[in-house]
Amino acid sequence: MSDIRLDNITAAAVASFDGVPDARRRELLQQLVQHLHAYAKATRLTHDEWRAALAFLHRAGDISSANRSEFSLLSDVLGLSSLVDLLASTPGATPGSVLGPFHTVGSPWCENPADLTRDNPGEVVLLRGRVHGPQGQPLSDATLDFWQNAANGLYWQMDDSQPPDNLRCQLKVDAAGRFAIRTIRPQPYQIPTDGPAWHDVVPSAGRSAWRPAHYHLIVQAPAHRTLVTELFDAADPYLASDAVFGVRAALVRRYETTPDADVPVMDIDIVLAAA
Amino acid sequence: MSDIRLDNITAAAVASFDGVPDARRRELLQQLVQHLHAYAKATRLTHDEWRAALAFLHRAGDISSANRSEFSLLSDVLGLSSLVDLLASTPGATPGSVLGPFHTVGSPWCENPADLTRDNPGEVVLLRGRVHGPQGQPLSDATLDFWQNAANGLYWQMDDSQPPDNLRCQLKVDAAGRFAIRTIRPQPYQIPTDGPAWHDVVPSAGRSAWRPAHYHLIVQAPAHRTLVTELFDAADPYLASDAVFGVRAALVRRYETTPDADVPVMDIDIVLAAA
Repeated sequence: MSDIRLDNITAAAVASFDGVPDARRRELLQQLVQHLHAYAKATRLTHDEWRAALAFLHRAGDISSANRSEFSLLSDVLGLSSLVDLLASTPGATPGSVLGPFHTVGSPWCENPADLTRDNPGEVVLLRGRVHGPQGQPLSDATLDFWQNAANGLYWQMDDSQPPDNLRCQLKVDAAGRFAIRTIRPQPYQIPTDGPAWHDVVPSAGRSAWRPAHYHLIVQAPAHRTLVTELFDAADPYLASDAVFGVRAALVRRYETTPDADVPVMDIDIVLAAA
Repeated sequence: MSDIRLDNITAAAVASFDGVPDARRRELLQQLVQHLHAYAKATRLTHDEWRAALAFLHRAGDISSANRSEFSLLSDVLGLSSLVDLLASTPGATPGSVLGPFHTVGSPWCENPADLTRDNPGEVVLLRGRVHGPQGQPLSDATLDFWQNAANGLYWQMDDSQPPDNLRCQLKVDAAGRFAIRTIRPQPYQIPTDGPAWHDVVPSAGRSAWRPAHYHLIVQAPAHRTLVTELFDAADPYLASDAVFGVRAALVRRYETTPDADVPVMDIDIVLAAA
């Protein structure tokens, strides 16, 4: 088009992707153009603001590395990561929550019931539950990928004082879909505030950088949708102000004292949706 | 909020920026959340697609450097840069167009009329014009910052065969607001296609990476809005398919043969809006 104006530029940019053969890819690109342009028009974005946004992305790229994705953190603090989790959730199934930056593939396999306490300081607790399908049937083929932080609030990857693979493992449920993990009560922690995703975006809002204490779980079973989720401690002081919008009522559980365990127990029923 | 659901997450993320003291900054952040979430909801963005988007931004960060902003190029190919130019344009004034990545501050000052031809190969032409205000009055205090590519399609920054500052300068208009630059006819060129902004986004659409030949101009005068724009050659084969959506009818000019010049002349009247 040889006369691009305010009243035709969005149509022109959308049409420039008409030739993308894959329908889904075409939809993602054309909707991206539409929403990006709608944002610029709604705010009447200025050159200075646009340049500031580009410089921000540049800084986010600079601080990113193989071990850190500042773009992921940005997505977290804007609620996008959590929204994608919710979009992937199925009514009736356990809701998803944020994967976070500390999952790494290939955790060691452990027995079920598992004991991850080793030499870790902190309060010993028991996380136990049952995995079933949408009709309540136990999923005896389910596997769990589990990780959490230590009593000092750090994950093993960021903390030389912890042994490799501390407080993480994969396990298979039993024939009744049950699992149990003896572990250390996880702790609240602050998301990284030293990069542009936090520093340039959030502080002036008076928001808290704390995440409430949680376990991370990926639950998989044949013919069912993979669940990426978290479990939260009902007693946590940061439950109502999670910096990354990860808390859902169905994922908040209380530690209970029960006659069949020597330590406080968090019990959870996990429901996977059909694939 | 301790129960984030699909029906309240956008409101929660918007409200998390209620405390930003600066009203404009608050608007930009809250509208960003709204448009980003609207995009994810409209497309029902999946985890795989979200991860691919983050990986894309990571790659864009990796290839960016002090001399290259892949995010700027991404903005260009999505039509955002051009949209921001159009939003900054004033009806009745000469429309803006993309700044592009080859402007650097501090071009050498030259006489007016200027001669930039030096030892450059290519067709010698004359760009001349007049800068006035919205009521047609000449702006005798106006200054121009001018840059273009050489006959091989390259800007001096990317081409060791060109002397530093080749084919760029700043100048002051005369008392009647006039300027003249004897120079080399610029050439069409391809935007960088070796990075993710082009490579991962555009090629499957069958879009052309070519930009039609153009001059870059920044025109400033006291009490008037600064104009960042381009002038295009009416004979250019890529006029209707500019990769970055920069062409406006008012910026397309023909080279004419005139009795008062020994080379083809492109004439342009530039109108600045009041500040």
